[in-house]
Amino acid sequence: MAKTDIARRVYNHAWKLDPIVRSLLDTDFYKLLMLQMIWKLYPDVDVTFTLINRTTKVRLAEEIDEAELRAQLDHVRTLGISKKELIWLAGNTFYGRTQIFEPEFLAWLSTIRLPAYELSKRDGQYELTFRGRWTETTLWEIPALAIINELRSRAALKSLGYFSLDVVYARAKAKMWEKVERLKQLPGLRISDFGTRRRHSFLWQRWCVEALKEGIGEAFTGTSNVLLAMDSDLEAVGTNAHELPMVAAALAKTDSDLANAPYKVLQDWNTLYNGNLLIVLPDAFGTTAFLRNAPSWVADWTGFRPDSAPPIEGGEKIIAWWEKMGRDPSQKLLIFSDGLDVDAIIDTYRHFEGRVRMSFGWGTNLTNDFIGCAPHDIAGLKPISIVCKITEANGHPAVKLSDNPLKATGEPAEVQRYLKFFGSEDRVEHAVKV
Amino acid sequence: MAKTDIARRVYNHAWKLDPIVRSLLDTDFYKLLMLQMIWKLYPDVDVTFTLINRTTKVRLAEEIDEAELRAQLDHVRTLGISKKELIWLAGNTFYGRTQIFEPEFLAWLSTIRLPAYELSKRDGQYELTFRGRWTETTLWEIPALAIINELRSRAALKSLGYFSLDVVYARAKAKMWEKVERLKQLPGLRISDFGTRRRHSFLWQRWCVEALKEGIGEAFTGTSNVLLAMDSDLEAVGTNAHELPMVAAALAKTDSDLANAPYKVLQDWNTLYNGNLLIVLPDAFGTTAFLRNAPSWVADWTGFRPDSAPPIEGGEKIIAWWEKMGRDPSQKLLIFSDGLDVDAIIDTYRHFEGRVRMSFGWGTNLTNDFIGCAPHDIAGLKPISIVCKITEANGHPAVKLSDNPLKATGEPAEVQRYLKFFGSEDRVEHAVKV
Repeated sequence: MAKTDIARRVYNHAWKLDPIVRSLLDTDFYKLLMLQMIWKLYPDVDVTFTLINRTTKVRLAEEIDEAELRAQLDHVRTLGISKKELIWLAGNTFYGRTQIFEPEFLAWLSTIRLPAYELSKRDGQYELTFRGRWTETTLWEIPALAIINELRSRAALKSLGYFSLDVVYARAKAKMWEKVERLKQLPGLRISDFGTRRRHSFLWQRWCVEALKEGIGEAFTGTSNVLLAMDSDLEAVGTNAHELPMVAAALAKTDSDLANAPYKVLQDWNTLYNGNLLIVLPDAFGTTAFLRNAPSWVADWTGFRPDSAPPIEGGEKIIAWWEKMGRDPSQKLLIFSDGLDVDAIIDTYRHFEGRVRMSFGWGTNLTNDFIGCAPHDIAGLKPISIVCKITEANGHPAVKLSDNPLKATGEPAEVQRYLKFFGSEDRVEHAVKV
Repeated sequence: MAKTDIARRVYNHAWKLDPIVRSLLDTDFYKLLMLQMIWKLYPDVDVTFTLINRTTKVRLAEEIDEAELRAQLDHVRTLGISKKELIWLAGNTFYGRTQIFEPEFLAWLSTIRLPAYELSKRDGQYELTFRGRWTETTLWEIPALAIINELRSRAALKSLGYFSLDVVYARAKAKMWEKVERLKQLPGLRISDFGTRRRHSFLWQRWCVEALKEGIGEAFTGTSNVLLAMDSDLEAVGTNAHELPMVAAALAKTDSDLANAPYKVLQDWNTLYNGNLLIVLPDAFGTTAFLRNAPSWVADWTGFRPDSAPPIEGGEKIIAWWEKMGRDPSQKLLIFSDGLDVDAIIDTYRHFEGRVRMSFGWGTNLTNDFIGCAPHDIAGLKPISIVCKITEANGHPAVKLSDNPLKATGEPAEVQRYLKFFGSEDRVEHAVKV
């Protein structure tokens, strides 16, 4: 006799919404670290976050249904941090430190809800913006991106029957496991999941995280996803992002303030965090400019995260700088996180082996690699390069230059002003895949 | 909130037995066709079926628990043909013919239960025999083999956790789908599932059958598994097996009877069946001997199933014989079924394309190919060459010579007698993989 759980079947077929984001902790850990700093030091700053689809040939507003998008975004606005989540944030050890989050911060965090969003369509793209206090809007970045990406996957898979879906996921699992087996060959590898924002889906990210946990064991140092870290007893990893120097620069009143903005946020950071959290993200306005003007204390920080130069080139530049500053690179840490695939990870690992401590933050190619998995080519399964960036702070336009001009964001005139100010040495275009 | 169907969970964890064979129709279709003939023409013959593990280095009695084996065999003895199954057998069309099974036969079939078995251990192997009326023991062959093979898979997978199992099946699915995509390239291919006896498991065979249905569509002409044919609305396929000439030969009282045995069973067959069911299985005592002595009416039959010579060599021999007999091979059918993998299927298809009608019966490599799928090498996942053969009929030893001496069965002295009688031309050893 066939045994069907009738309640479950009716529930599965009658639900109004299959939420993509079910917890405010389904976000990157560094958002919480940054949020505490913003809450402490920049509580009154207003910013605008804007969705930017760099893969313009993909017309998101035609692939994703607006009502579904609104329903998912609306759902996120109903979420608050749960009691269990608060207790975990308060009681867990992050980067070896207990009580990294202050009780007052957690008390405030327990009250927040995500603010309203503005959504419209233009030229086949969605215009999605989040305006308001930086302390609230910053939490929109990751869920907004995860929702767009998962709605896109769902739309792409809608035409497939049960059997084809089974083949798609079987192949994706087999493909992922081949990667695991290759990574297993690298002794002393340290790699973590940075794939929340561009993931195929939440459940798929969870599977990939389980695969790394099962497959490479100690080499898997954690996930940037706070919810997965909590649920799977993994380390929550991540430090800081471009939004910090971007806001500091946008708020700069004088040239001297602007020149100092990238270092000021590091000083801010250092008032709250230390040790392995002292990771420099140098490329907001170009790594070369950053290093040229950096105060010597920057060389005391634990490591750098080169995020938009090719990993070997970017890493060599930082190692050379450490050496120039009289520091021993073998005691330093480089975190690679820009569009990594297994080949890039292996090449970079082999290149720097023994010369510097390394860690890899594996993103889109970890959690959204379905190329060749569908029975026929489905364009919607190919990941796109989509970001959600600060475009304004207290009414001033915000800019990111990056080491790769194709990853720059901001109003063109303002970008030019920044380029004149910081210089454009060593900025080289590299195709942005993800 | 996690939603668990408590009843299902308790049931899943508390069941006494997960039956491998849940229906008497979970068998090869040709067993039923042969059974009707045996029931009609040989109702009083007693035979002995014996399990023969040709992969002697695999010590089955050490891999498979005896209590589990007994429990599975005992379970099969509780099964009878259900009302729904009888109605389907009576009402379905097989090979384009309605009512292929006589009402009296079905009435008798509705009453049968499988007879007792004898099981003991010797030198690390199981001695498993079925003695009694041919009409009853013949139905043991397929379930006995399926049970041994699935218990072996289960034992092999026992050490793996949930995640590893997930990877194993994902890879097996991905691997199977690669095969489907290769077979899709062959226009006019006709292929069917012959993989019941050696399958990894029932559920896996079902998945593979669904994969062929979904993936190659019309090229998939059916399954030998009656239960899967019924449940998936597929054609049930298969004709006759070596047990017919083997028993006829064992019962032969004179040299003339022995010489005529392979043709007598074809005449018997022809009293019940016609059309695409008129398929000659020529290799029981060597194909060369069979063709040399064959009456001319054998060339009127629809086709041949060369089952133990390499497919191209075996096919050429039969085509040459048809031509010698003045028949047009392009109107004839060759069914290839001996240890096929995709390479062999493609090579054979390309070789004979346009010269003869072809059909492929895909067995072990379809339903039990897990090589390279486990996280580490698991010997128990490698299929073995195991058969369940008639070793005696009415007290006389039964023999199969085959075109491949490694596939011969029977007492050595009796095999020698048959070899002297039928000759041993063109019998060449080929490694028996499955």
